[in-house]
Amino acid sequence: MFYLSDSMIDNLVKEDVPYLDLTTLLLGIGDRPGKIAFATREPTLICGTEEVQKILEKSGAEVLQFTPSGSFLPPGTTFLEAQGTAAGIHTAWKVSQNLLEYASGIATRTKLLVDRARQVHPPIQILTTRKHFPGTKELSIKAIVMGGAWPHRLGLSETILFFRQHLAFIGGIDQLGQRLAQLKARAPEKRIVVEAETYEEAVSLAKSGVEIIQLDKFKIEETSLIVKAIRKINPEIKIAAAGGVNVDNVAAVAATGVDMIVLSSVYFGKPADIRVDILPTGGF
Amino acid sequence: MFYLSDSMIDNLVKEDVPYLDLTTLLLGIGDRPGKIAFATREPTLICGTEEVQKILEKSGAEVLQFTPSGSFLPPGTTFLEAQGTAAGIHTAWKVSQNLLEYASGIATRTKLLVDRARQVHPPIQILTTRKHFPGTKELSIKAIVMGGAWPHRLGLSETILFFRQHLAFIGGIDQLGQRLAQLKARAPEKRIVVEAETYEEAVSLAKSGVEIIQLDKFKIEETSLIVKAIRKINPEIKIAAAGGVNVDNVAAVAATGVDMIVLSSVYFGKPADIRVDILPTGGF
Amino acid sequence: MFYLSDSMIDNLVKEDVPYLDLTTLLLGIGDRPGKIAFATREPTLICGTEEVQKILEKSGAEVLQFTPSGSFLPPGTTFLEAQGTAAGIHTAWKVSQNLLEYASGIATRTKLLVDRARQVHPPIQILTTRKHFPGTKELSIKAIVMGGAWPHRLGLSETILFFRQHLAFIGGIDQLGQRLAQLKARAPEKRIVVEAETYEEAVSLAKSGVEIIQLDKFKIEETSLIVKAIRKINPEIKIAAAGGVNVDNVAAVAATGVDMIVLSSVYFGKPADIRVDILPTGGF
Amino acid sequence: MFYLSDSMIDNLVKEDVPYLDLTTLLLGIGDRPGKIAFATREPTLICGTEEVQKILEKSGAEVLQFTPSGSFLPPGTTFLEAQGTAAGIHTAWKVSQNLLEYASGIATRTKLLVDRARQVHPPIQILTTRKHFPGTKELSIKAIVMGGAWPHRLGLSETILFFRQHLAFIGGIDQLGQRLAQLKARAPEKRIVVEAETYEEAVSLAKSGVEIIQLDKFKIEETSLIVKAIRKINPEIKIAAAGGVNVDNVAAVAATGVDMIVLSSVYFGKPADIRVDILPTGGF
Amino acid sequence: MFYLSDSMIDNLVKEDVPYLDLTTLLLGIGDRPGKIAFATREPTLICGTEEVQKILEKSGAEVLQFTPSGSFLPPGTTFLEAQGTAAGIHTAWKVSQNLLEYASGIATRTKLLVDRARQVHPPIQILTTRKHFPGTKELSIKAIVMGGAWPHRLGLSETILFFRQHLAFIGGIDQLGQRLAQLKARAPEKRIVVEAETYEEAVSLAKSGVEIIQLDKFKIEETSLIVKAIRKINPEIKIAAAGGVNVDNVAAVAATGVDMIVLSSVYFGKPADIRVDILPTGGF
Amino acid sequence: MFYLSDSMIDNLVKEDVPYLDLTTLLLGIGDRPGKIAFATREPTLICGTEEVQKILEKSGAEVLQFTPSGSFLPPGTTFLEAQGTAAGIHTAWKVSQNLLEYASGIATRTKLLVDRARQVHPPIQILTTRKHFPGTKELSIKAIVMGGAWPHRLGLSETILFFRQHLAFIGGIDQLGQRLAQLKARAPEKRIVVEAETYEEAVSLAKSGVEIIQLDKFKIEETSLIVKAIRKINPEIKIAAAGGVNVDNVAAVAATGVDMIVLSSVYFGKPADIRVDILPTGGF
Repeated sequence: MFYLSDSMIDNLVKEDVPYLDLTTLLLGIGDRPGKIAFATREPTLICGTEEVQKILEKSGAEVLQFTPSGSFLPPGTTFLEAQGTAAGIHTAWKVSQNLLEYASGIATRTKLLVDRARQVHPPIQILTTRKHFPGTKELSIKAIVMGGAWPHRLGLSETILFFRQHLAFIGGIDQLGQRLAQLKARAPEKRIVVEAETYEEAVSLAKSGVEIIQLDKFKIEETSLIVKAIRKINPEIKIAAAGGVNVDNVAAVAATGVDMIVLSSVYFGKPADIRVDILPTGGF
Repeated sequence: MFYLSDSMIDNLVKEDVPYLDLTTLLLGIGDRPGKIAFATREPTLICGTEEVQKILEKSGAEVLQFTPSGSFLPPGTTFLEAQGTAAGIHTAWKVSQNLLEYASGIATRTKLLVDRARQVHPPIQILTTRKHFPGTKELSIKAIVMGGAWPHRLGLSETILFFRQHLAFIGGIDQLGQRLAQLKARAPEKRIVVEAETYEEAVSLAKSGVEIIQLDKFKIEETSLIVKAIRKINPEIKIAAAGGVNVDNVAAVAATGVDMIVLSSVYFGKPADIRVDILPTGGF
Repeated sequence: MFYLSDSMIDNLVKEDVPYLDLTTLLLGIGDRPGKIAFATREPTLICGTEEVQKILEKSGAEVLQFTPSGSFLPPGTTFLEAQGTAAGIHTAWKVSQNLLEYASGIATRTKLLVDRARQVHPPIQILTTRKHFPGTKELSIKAIVMGGAWPHRLGLSETILFFRQHLAFIGGIDQLGQRLAQLKARAPEKRIVVEAETYEEAVSLAKSGVEIIQLDKFKIEETSLIVKAIRKINPEIKIAAAGGVNVDNVAAVAATGVDMIVLSSVYFGKPADIRVDILPTGGF
Repeated sequence: MFYLSDSMIDNLVKEDVPYLDLTTLLLGIGDRPGKIAFATREPTLICGTEEVQKILEKSGAEVLQFTPSGSFLPPGTTFLEAQGTAAGIHTAWKVSQNLLEYASGIATRTKLLVDRARQVHPPIQILTTRKHFPGTKELSIKAIVMGGAWPHRLGLSETILFFRQHLAFIGGIDQLGQRLAQLKARAPEKRIVVEAETYEEAVSLAKSGVEIIQLDKFKIEETSLIVKAIRKINPEIKIAAAGGVNVDNVAAVAATGVDMIVLSSVYFGKPADIRVDILPTGGF
Repeated sequence: MFYLSDSMIDNLVKEDVPYLDLTTLLLGIGDRPGKIAFATREPTLICGTEEVQKILEKSGAEVLQFTPSGSFLPPGTTFLEAQGTAAGIHTAWKVSQNLLEYASGIATRTKLLVDRARQVHPPIQILTTRKHFPGTKELSIKAIVMGGAWPHRLGLSETILFFRQHLAFIGGIDQLGQRLAQLKARAPEKRIVVEAETYEEAVSLAKSGVEIIQLDKFKIEETSLIVKAIRKINPEIKIAAAGGVNVDNVAAVAATGVDMIVLSSVYFGKPADIRVDILPTGGF
Repeated sequence: MFYLSDSMIDNLVKEDVPYLDLTTLLLGIGDRPGKIAFATREPTLICGTEEVQKILEKSGAEVLQFTPSGSFLPPGTTFLEAQGTAAGIHTAWKVSQNLLEYASGIATRTKLLVDRARQVHPPIQILTTRKHFPGTKELSIKAIVMGGAWPHRLGLSETILFFRQHLAFIGGIDQLGQRLAQLKARAPEKRIVVEAETYEEAVSLAKSGVEIIQLDKFKIEETSLIVKAIRKINPEIKIAAAGGVNVDNVAAVAATGVDMIVLSSVYFGKPADIRVDILPTGGF
């Protein structure tokens, strides 16, 4: 299990409560004892409980029940409970709920999408791009991994992926073939991924010895044809489909027989609906 | 116009390119001159161009064409162009596109929602909660403001809003009435907002002198009834509707005559679709 | 109770002890056991003990006695004690003392000022501006709240306050009246505060429907006159007095019957005098 | 000239304007052109203009007139002017004014104090402790240096100063004599400063070979006696007076003939009074 | 070309000059004009000039001559010159020299090592581990890339490398074979690297279908034998030699015919010797 | 004992594991229990165990055996052990090993060098410059102090050291004599160090009353002559030798009778060789 760092967690809390909780202060309820409980309202692959545990503890609360990120829970399941002061609970409340809702939303969408894809093509891998909300990579990556996907690229510094936007600078995709052997030798530990935008490009890349071909924004039927063509040329080549894949069309894309689907759609969408109950545990 | 701070912008770039751009380096194209252009693919209220200008300049590129955040553009409009080296352009590309797409997505959804609400009830105000993606408040708030909304609360430190989760600690909403005068006196500069969950609570709050009543998750028809009831009690009371309002139901909610709608739905959803063209400007 | 974040506390300690404690190292006393005790030397509303507890614990010391921020203590009261090594105690000493002295100085001045104002006009509220020492908002706001005041504005992002420096851009204060209804409608959750610099302006603002009028740098007798005039026009209007109010003149200002006093003077002045005793608890 | 770092300056601006300037936005004046001018209201040793220049430029304004920190100006002198948009000017305004007022307040108090001390004892040095407001060392140190003082210690990591709180761990000040030669040999580049609290201690330290003796909280007449006694023992020993020295008693302390005065009082007190004028430069 | 971020550069400068330059201040030479020039003293692959340019500019100096990182220069070559004030030059001096010396040291050692390896086995790749000085990854990675190497792994988040310390948790290296197909399917975009510690392990891994085998701390002659054995089993397998490779033995290791050498030795060692000349350009 | 701050430690861990440990995740071993043990492989003055303890605890492991920084251990000594999950142990492993190896490398080199110098000239002090790897001052200073050295200067803000690069701005070293008395009076708490580059300069500085003379890059025999000459002029003057001193020539330099040796060579060189054993403690 990996975690957001302490300083990132501090920043998230300060983003929501930079100085004081005016409402709690005005009511004068800060010192009263209470309980906070988080529960699912829909089937949810929860994500972020490790971070919320830290937020609660930093707010002086004691965690009574804990469920790790990655657990898939039916609606109505209480998965995290803590007791503390009203001040501590109200400080932790929304940032915790928010963190759980966004992270679990991503994780649950990912799981749904992975499940649908695997139902029609069990060995398929779902990979997510770097197109998450800027500034949220730590939490977004944790969430997609919990949901069963894998990061396609964390950024520009660890993977090699040729887009047409790179190849334009060497004179286009046709120039790649001649340089491929040299490029592969230069980066023996990396797989080189090349994006194809037409049937012809894909076939040409397959013949030139590219190991992974990423099909960009092809129609389903085109993808099927290309997969067959590539398999005939070299069954070892891995094929990724990318561009506009979401929960509605993922099964159809998976059915084309591609090895991987690269997508961003799990990163956005409705956050999970997490119910939060806050109750006093003392008198008035 | 307000901006993300330089250090936040540095962080966003480093999140995507922590060390080097492996692909550009491997291809050896870093020093070649090129152009990058950003264009709309759909009607878009663009947001984030000020930040992208900084990212481009930090990457050594020169901005040739600039359009400020807040401009509403038809599809196919090029709104930002720069020239630089391939290395600079590729470093700036995705983080810029991503920032523009998420921010413009929020801004455009906000504008659409504001427009629909104002069509049926021109004086209505759209306010957004603090339920944005954790860690993105700077950009999210900029985007909703560009779209015509206003932040409901930035966090716990500047507004007073009594939820039942606060009132539970003083013995419930009924106890509020007795203390209201004293609470108002203690915070004369702030408006006190109280959340009501039933018709009875709303009426009782209206009678007790609350200035702003926030109706939480009421049905449309209930909201209409309550608005009428409250107006009869005191036409000066401002009424906010909150809970589950989105672009599909906002007109119906606005038609109930509430003064404000408080919502989170603009914060998430599909990012705007921004086209990016990258082209070499020299030979090979 | 709210706290400085861990990373802010780390920064404060590193500001005083960036690398090592040369003196303790040279003497070779680092491992010797000892005690540190903090006590008041004058009547003090202490503030910052939560942060000092964290500093002491981060320095490896164990807190033996603790008193929460907000306690008003007579001279000679020991309110915080810890035991640890000489190295830990010396690392924590000055930054802890300093933090307590500055924060308690602000808190105590605030309390004194609030007390004096309330003695002559019990319902009055003391509000503090954003004119604290740059970079100290977290601690400064905590301190004034402990002392019984309230932040007037945390910054530019959560309140609406028209100074003449804004109105100049629309053609002066006279232009405001025409636009007021529209401005109020646009920000229904916020109270709009307008600064008046003359009797005529104040009266004119009162007539135009402004909810809160902030009188800037008026003489006591003028303030009294204006308060009466405004009350006659509309007793619901809240009146704030601002500009040069301090512990010496606060009672006089309060006696004018204003609802609020807005001031900065509590932020600066002599820090509280906190006695620190450090004693070895072992032999030599 | 030394400066606050860019990231510190960003933090100061964000502390005051974390997201947007609500007032300017509501008024819709953001794009209008204007001017901002800073002027003294009293004799002021200005400090912080380099940082304010950066704040103004980061806010998109162009600096028209600039005066460096360290200039001593008569009342009514305009020392910094810039032009920009109303949005930029209002974003920069208060944090700039605040930074100038606090820094110039410290610098001016320091100059006054240095001047008074030097009038009676020209070679005297004024040194400031590390008892500034926690979190403000960069600006506070810049200000006292501009005023003619010198930091006594920046923190624990670069100087050696034995307080009784250290000596307690080796059995008291009497034990120091025996170890002094060894301690001096161990730190040949540093001067060792030892604090004395009684006449006897001071004399004993002088005889034992301490190079700098810091007299803690002695009365003026005691200080005079001790200075004479020490000079007789060894005229090379430097003597510092510390504890409660401020602008009122500094001349008397200086007259005792000590070499240095160590004090904190310049760090706090009334900020300088800086007048800020903001004016539109276009029509309406 | 990639750069350290602005905030990292700010941190490096503040590490060396946290508050002020005492010596320059004491001498009173801060405002005098001067020049600073950096030159090689030995054959040097310079690295870090982009960062030093920023440091100089942040210190108010103007860069007159600039040479990009990656240039290989003979001794006595002046590669960077700037003019500014004595204060600016002295602030920038040591942190700039230090940054250039450490980064160029790494880059030059890397180049030397790459050259030696390529002389005996031209297609070989030199890869560097994550064993750089903690906290220096940005600069260290830039330096090895300038020198012609490539990062083996940036950290744990982007590569898959099975050490015995992982395999122990599944029952040892023998268990890997059975799971390999499944592991490869799960991470189709990544190459899986497995470390072998004996001849038998290496052969067994080769037979089981591992794509990259990393030989850990083998003797030269053993490595030669294993390379031959693996090539016979499957010439497509890539072989990396790791453990104790440095400039003295790299040619011998390269001569074994491995595809890659993984090493850390370039990260440490003597910094490059960079001459810095500082001269006044005005009178006295 | 002093420590790296929590946020610095967080940064170091994130530098190595920014998001997740891909290998552990792929193998699915994250939850399995295990042990990690750190042991010396050569005589080592260990440094950094306090920080590694924190890293291990932040990774959820429990420390079973601990040895403080500064302990000098024979080869084969296990000095730190912890138990936790495989995920926690693998997250902590390399950053911990790396931190220990670099810090202990510096500390051990320092001790060796101090020992050699003291053997020939027991009272000598070893001082280290600010020429450590940029960005590593906290850890580097801790390490040299553990090894028995002392920081010569932490940076520009706390010491006064005249290089020829300063003196050039006042017209050269000859001008210094006339101003020395004034400079010493201005900074009575500081020792003024002046660098000499020739015999004549050294003698002239000695006569002019400088307290510490730093001999820059003199040959051994020259140093001996100068030491004698200076001792004759004034036996109180402290003499430092600087420039190119390392473990091989330190004894010879020490034998010249200088009081201090100023060097950077301990900061770089081979990290200590620390053995790490990781073993599962459960079944499979």
